[in-house]
Amino acid sequence: MFLYLSVRSSGSVITFRDAEVKVRELNLHNFRGADLALFSAGAAAGRKWAEPFAESGALVIDNSSAFRNDQDIPLVVPEVNPERAFKHRGIIANPNCSTIVMVTALQPLNLAFNLESVVVTSFQSVSGAGRLAVKEYTSQLSDPSHEHNIFPRTIGGNVIPHIGDFDIGGVSIEEQKFLHETRKIMELPDLKVSATAVRVPVETGHSLSIYASFKNEIKISRAQKILAASQGIRFLPKNEQYPTPLEVTGKDDVYIGRLRTAEGFPNAVNMWVVSDNLRKGAALNAIQIAELVLTGDNP
Amino acid sequence: MFLYLSVRSSGSVITFRDAEVKVRELNLHNFRGADLALFSAGAAAGRKWAEPFAESGALVIDNSSAFRNDQDIPLVVPEVNPERAFKHRGIIANPNCSTIVMVTALQPLNLAFNLESVVVTSFQSVSGAGRLAVKEYTSQLSDPSHEHNIFPRTIGGNVIPHIGDFDIGGVSIEEQKFLHETRKIMELPDLKVSATAVRVPVETGHSLSIYASFKNEIKISRAQKILAASQGIRFLPKNEQYPTPLEVTGKDDVYIGRLRTAEGFPNAVNMWVVSDNLRKGAALNAIQIAELVLTGDNP
Repeated sequence: MFLYLSVRSSGSVITFRDAEVKVRELNLHNFRGADLALFSAGAAAGRKWAEPFAESGALVIDNSSAFRNDQDIPLVVPEVNPERAFKHRGIIANPNCSTIVMVTALQPLNLAFNLESVVVTSFQSVSGAGRLAVKEYTSQLSDPSHEHNIFPRTIGGNVIPHIGDFDIGGVSIEEQKFLHETRKIMELPDLKVSATAVRVPVETGHSLSIYASFKNEIKISRAQKILAASQGIRFLPKNEQYPTPLEVTGKDDVYIGRLRTAEGFPNAVNMWVVSDNLRKGAALNAIQIAELVLTGDNP
Repeated sequence: MFLYLSVRSSGSVITFRDAEVKVRELNLHNFRGADLALFSAGAAAGRKWAEPFAESGALVIDNSSAFRNDQDIPLVVPEVNPERAFKHRGIIANPNCSTIVMVTALQPLNLAFNLESVVVTSFQSVSGAGRLAVKEYTSQLSDPSHEHNIFPRTIGGNVIPHIGDFDIGGVSIEEQKFLHETRKIMELPDLKVSATAVRVPVETGHSLSIYASFKNEIKISRAQKILAASQGIRFLPKNEQYPTPLEVTGKDDVYIGRLRTAEGFPNAVNMWVVSDNLRKGAALNAIQIAELVLTGDNP
């Protein structure tokens, strides 16, 4: 196993399974092949290094946005579209953190009731923005006047509806991912998704308030049974059992609670979905893709 | 001016406009009439004392939920239904904090485009739950293991989709208020409202992620002009200008930003609405009602 990191971190040592592994700066001189290359270094590193690794025979799983919208590159959540993982040409893209959580929750209901549109509002934790973001957040909790550099406003004691730049129509990059990545993973090119992505003062755990409308009429008892039996999902059927980020931190599953219908919306459900953005929203999903391709059978 | 408080607080002294005013326990022996009685003491106190005050000739404005759904009692937001305030029989109800903010934002667009349905997710601050709730929150910021009594889970560093008890269908009391109070204030008895009410670790300032669908097609440039010209609203037209709770604390207006349409939803807009829940969401709206009735002309 080799650990390559960006220039900034090279020379450091990381403990992995009780062994100390030296981190190298990746360049053409020390590059060598591998069976599996897990990329978690942003879109620029993905664009530069994914091809060389794939050409050397590695399966590359890239956690950045570099390849997610590339038609020839699979974008995979193993619970949703496992068969796509086997159609790779060396590179598989790992989806956006919030999108992974949303499609995992929606796919079982989609298969039963035919998803038509989604209105989603996210409560995204600061760890989704990286290590320095967590530091900025914790500094602001003890000192509210601590300046903001990572986030566009103070996040301690505040909420910020701004994740990624805005396009000309006022939609943020994070909100665009909810639309485009969900369409690709669920293979629903006409799906309508209206998203509002919001950063909240929570360290880890992304929460989603989802309103989902279906082509078929919803039977809530059937929807409950379907979610309770779905892989990767922990369904909490009782009202008072809803998940929160603090309780879900460190857990692998996507937690779903507060499944309910609203008066006057016969084909729709609301639900409250929470998952650890560092696990299912990122690293865990990448590992699940690797396990699927390297050890699994094409379903 | 007299200050009456619940037994718990009686005997204390409150500073009002540089004068120290002793707080009395309200009972039948010290009760006396007034021109204006502002109630902010919960539903039980409202039910017990609103009638005696009204019968003695006072205009009672009650901030609790006691009378809000009573057909004979006006539920008023001066920017939305001022004419209703003049049809009182001594008691006027002040709406729920989040509902006041939502209807103020929606009414100008409703008059232009005919509102049909709303999907709203709220980010409600801890001060909406009272003084002890703020204390619990700030204690948890410095000590995350500080126990929770007011909130159903730890609110420091967490979000909780649970405000008020759940009904048998899993809808919380706060979410029911979004439906029933909005229908009454906007006089749209068939309006569909699907709400998710969430407590967030913010001291003051309620934020709303609103998806609103209309009977008429939306022209975004017209919607912008309408909101910019509306009373009680501060409209922020540029993407990067969105409001956040920290910036809106202490302000009177309802702040609206991030007005946009979503691909595939031709008759709908999304917007991000923030207001100080202690001002427009509570005390300010009550004072505005009093000013309207005591000094204003029936519009």
